[in-house]
Amino acid sequence: MSFRNRVEKEILVIDGAMGTLLQQRGLPSGWCPDEWNVSHPEVIQEVHRLYLEAGADIITTNTFGAIRSKLADYGLEDRVKELNQAAVTLAKEVAKPYGALVAGSIGPLGKFLQPLGEISFDEAYQQFFEQCQAMVEAGVDLILFETFGDIGEMRVALIAAADAGDVPVVASFTFDESGRTFTGTDPETAAVVVERLGVSAIGVNCSVGPRQLADVVQRLTQSTNLPILVSPNAGMPEMVEGQTVFRETPEMMADYAVRFVEYGASILGGCCGTTPLHIKAIRQSVKELTLKPRHRLFGLRLASRVKTATIDPKGMPVAIGERLNPTGKKALQAEIREGKTEITRRDALAQVAAGSAILDVNVGVGGVDQVAAMERAVNAVQVLVDAPLCIDSTDPQVIEQALKNYHGKALINSVNGEEQSLDTILPLAKRYGAALIGLTLDDQGIPATAKERLAVARKLMQRVEELGIPKQDLMIDTLVLTVSAQPEGVPETLNAIRYIKRDLGLTTSLGVSNVSFGLPNRGLINTAFFAMALAAGLDAAILNPQDQRMMETLRAAAVLTGRDVRAEQYIAREQTAQGGNQPPKVSEPVASTPLEVL
Amino acid sequence: MSFRNRVEKEILVIDGAMGTLLQQRGLPSGWCPDEWNVSHPEVIQEVHRLYLEAGADIITTNTFGAIRSKLADYGLEDRVKELNQAAVTLAKEVAKPYGALVAGSIGPLGKFLQPLGEISFDEAYQQFFEQCQAMVEAGVDLILFETFGDIGEMRVALIAAADAGDVPVVASFTFDESGRTFTGTDPETAAVVVERLGVSAIGVNCSVGPRQLADVVQRLTQSTNLPILVSPNAGMPEMVEGQTVFRETPEMMADYAVRFVEYGASILGGCCGTTPLHIKAIRQSVKELTLKPRHRLFGLRLASRVKTATIDPKGMPVAIGERLNPTGKKALQAEIREGKTEITRRDALAQVAAGSAILDVNVGVGGVDQVAAMERAVNAVQVLVDAPLCIDSTDPQVIEQALKNYHGKALINSVNGEEQSLDTILPLAKRYGAALIGLTLDDQGIPATAKERLAVARKLMQRVEELGIPKQDLMIDTLVLTVSAQPEGVPETLNAIRYIKRDLGLTTSLGVSNVSFGLPNRGLINTAFFAMALAAGLDAAILNPQDQRMMETLRAAAVLTGRDVRAEQYIAREQTAQGGNQPPKVSEPVASTPLEVL
Ligand SMILES: [Zn+2]
Ligand SMILES: [Zn+2]
Ligand SMILES: [Zn+2]
Repeated sequence: MSFRNRVEKEILVIDGAMGTLLQQRGLPSGWCPDEWNVSHPEVIQEVHRLYLEAGADIITTNTFGAIRSKLADYGLEDRVKELNQAAVTLAKEVAKPYGALVAGSIGPLGKFLQPLGEISFDEAYQQFFEQCQAMVEAGVDLILFETFGDIGEMRVALIAAADAGDVPVVASFTFDESGRTFTGTDPETAAVVVERLGVSAIGVNCSVGPRQLADVVQRLTQSTNLPILVSPNAGMPEMVEGQTVFRETPEMMADYAVRFVEYGASILGGCCGTTPLHIKAIRQSVKELTLKPRHRLFGLRLASRVKTATIDPKGMPVAIGERLNPTGKKALQAEIREGKTEITRRDALAQVAAGSAILDVNVGVGGVDQVAAMERAVNAVQVLVDAPLCIDSTDPQVIEQALKNYHGKALINSVNGEEQSLDTILPLAKRYGAALIGLTLDDQGIPATAKERLAVARKLMQRVEELGIPKQDLMIDTLVLTVSAQPEGVPETLNAIRYIKRDLGLTTSLGVSNVSFGLPNRGLINTAFFAMALAAGLDAAILNPQDQRMMETLRAAAVLTGRDVRAEQYIAREQTAQGGNQPPKVSEPVASTPLEVL
Repeated sequence: MSFRNRVEKEILVIDGAMGTLLQQRGLPSGWCPDEWNVSHPEVIQEVHRLYLEAGADIITTNTFGAIRSKLADYGLEDRVKELNQAAVTLAKEVAKPYGALVAGSIGPLGKFLQPLGEISFDEAYQQFFEQCQAMVEAGVDLILFETFGDIGEMRVALIAAADAGDVPVVASFTFDESGRTFTGTDPETAAVVVERLGVSAIGVNCSVGPRQLADVVQRLTQSTNLPILVSPNAGMPEMVEGQTVFRETPEMMADYAVRFVEYGASILGGCCGTTPLHIKAIRQSVKELTLKPRHRLFGLRLASRVKTATIDPKGMPVAIGERLNPTGKKALQAEIREGKTEITRRDALAQVAAGSAILDVNVGVGGVDQVAAMERAVNAVQVLVDAPLCIDSTDPQVIEQALKNYHGKALINSVNGEEQSLDTILPLAKRYGAALIGLTLDDQGIPATAKERLAVARKLMQRVEELGIPKQDLMIDTLVLTVSAQPEGVPETLNAIRYIKRDLGLTTSLGVSNVSFGLPNRGLINTAFFAMALAAGLDAAILNPQDQRMMETLRAAAVLTGRDVRAEQYIAREQTAQGGNQPPKVSEPVASTPLEVL
């Protein structure tokens, strides 16, 4: 039975450490462990057999470092295919009589992707694709990306794996004692990003022991309905007389395995320091347990590298900062032309400080290489602020460049009901795991009535779902006309919001300020219209968060629409403001990990 | 056939001057003309017969000054009943063979009512009631209040006439060349006030000639669907060799009569300087004409002495100034206790300057004679500003005192669905011609849902209509709960507005600020809620017009809801504001007639 079938029905046990056992069996320090797949196949198979005897349902190939750039450290860069295929073949031979599954282990590159490091998306993609393809050709049952500390790298790996073949993929991260990965990602954010990249399970492995992982596992169970793999080390590594020692006994590990199953985890194993005895104890402890049902509902979730932003029809409405857009802004246009990002970075920080949960990024300047400009803007902003980005362009190439470079789950602004738009934008959202703003216009233009806009939204939803994108990742913009030109358009836009939420269950967004075009003192019109739209159920708005009245309207309307329960956020904000006019506190450190470390 | 029947079907001709003809027949200067009803009955009947021969359908009794206070000038104050009944009896005798109707003429007292003069409502009422009652007992066909220059006096006269018996009443005013009555009332305001006081027709007579009245007649036809009487003088009086001369010929008068019928008038005659020849010419000119159908729709109209304010579901939403209310205001409480009106007057002026179309007046201070306090407040405010008043009390006696003293058409704040409230408040609105704010609560309290509040509003509407009050004079307040205590109440209040407008066709009002009770920075919550309510269709709000954000929200929302067509008012206001921060201009002079003149 396939991994996908089994993981839905059973609690699975996965094996423990490979490296420790190879060292015990003579692997010299400084030797390439992956090379033993060819030079010492009997040792590899012996280790696999020990874990199978201990009761593992899944064994992991000895390929953690068998990727081109790491093999190159040993001058083995041309043996990627050979070493991976050998490993899969060895494991399959041993696993077959046990009816066990073979997971192809892939570790991280050991170098950071742009903009944290130097590796480009395309370079990383090629290496992961090469390793995955070798494994798929050899008939691996699933691919296990493990011990990843950077969500950006995991994204590339998952995209490459999806291209390499129709094989189940597990994305397993390493979290430190603070509950974040090395580059600052929390469990929820990790789940949000990988969920849309075709994974069959998400996991945590290595780094710390089971007691340090308990909180991470619990948070993962609350952040996703994906099956969850937990392979802790056998405790925190300690140095005893010059030797690394792991102190968790098999019984301790097994007790934690039971607790993790109670939380909702379903694939249990071990990482550094674990042995077949640990796996045997885990096997014993979980054999009577059953899978805990997990059916949480999640709304539209976006993520930066370090943080998730939720657009929740019952939660606070969300401000999408509009200022990173050169339309009508001479200085920003000039900066984009000159390849600089000074204004971009300043405005990104200012907008987050003013309360933007999401930042729109647009580089639409004529005569400029917008693909390069978008890459520059996305990279400048994503290392600076933790708000997820909204990629704003009509050019699919510009959008794709942004999505390659972005290390989170972005929002694409926008797709619409035109066939040309659907055909080019939806595949990008699918491939790169992005959410979408869908505009209610199609090849016939912007429909006059709310009912017709609902029909366009329904078409968008159907096309999105046909492609396997969950409908909650589509947010509908019902489009604001200019009131001075078309006053009859205002109630249609507001009713479209109501209909789309009621009939389709989708979230809604608006670019509010277009309503006041051509009128004096536009802020007054914008603010009143915004309150009306929020009353109609608007979930997000593209606006200038430094327009104090707009943000005040958002907060007040949240109280009035029951989205700010017991007015807690409103009262907290007002108390802060009264306590000395401090600017609102940014809710997370601007970069969770000091960039110098990287 | 009765006057009420004939005036619906025919163009009627009413007679001309009585005084001029009596002087020609020997009435000495300084003699009481009304006394001739007893001493020279044959002369009176001769004049009547001349007009009947000329073709009049209605003749007017010789009783213009036969009211107690004017007869007292001749020592005849005890002969009110005798002189009036003699006049009616004489006229009926002569009219009978012609099938003509007898109108009992009643002129003004010649003295101003409080607060413009010294006469109280009750004194004036007694005199008009006495004269009307005498006429009704003698069998008059209709009562014609004519040559009235003060709307306050007309109100009292009409209330007294309604009490004297079931007789048709015509309310005829004198307008000067500027198109206003002596105390400043324009034609629309005159129509709005008398429409609700049981009149069968409204008219203009005396003062100027037909060419000066053309505009007034036209404005009246656009302000009411009541039949309209027009009895001009035979031109403007001129002094020629010490004699008053009227220069309009019968033919000229007849030409104007035709024009007035084309405008929509239906009772044509003449006043000073007109003769049977004029009436004969009018009779000839109109005999082939037919009544012009008049079926205009009017919304909720309120009036001060000088100005009408319309609450129109398609027009600008209206701000009802809330500041003349002592709740929580120590200084205003003290002023009310001390019987002063300094703060009251200052705040009345300030609220009108800030854009209030209507002012709420509340004197609810414990341990105070609120009847006296309300009279004082209403009188202080109504001579100072031209905004109509909203009488805010739960005490029927307090409300009645306000309605007696007020010279316009007031709004009562409020009635509700409790039987006690319906039984006490609705009769006051009926008797004094006031409009009502109806609260959607009843003996079971405030209903939780919008549908239940709609049901209370429907009950209020039915009870109002059963009493003969037109439904458009009922504005519904759907009640705002405190969001911090009952967040689920906000959508119910907003939906109640939608349902009441859609299902009942009534206008709606809210006291907005209650929504934010208990929260910090209440203005933010109030403003956002106000925009939401305006989007739901709110027509009026009780608010502090000096809260700039509330008024800005009102103006912006008017643009967005299509109530400020082409954003004309919004743009004009913004241009004024940019042109040097002037305060908004009060649209009418504060008192249209200098009070010194009175
Ligand atoms: Zn490990
Ligand atoms: Zn006259
Ligand atoms: Zn007259």
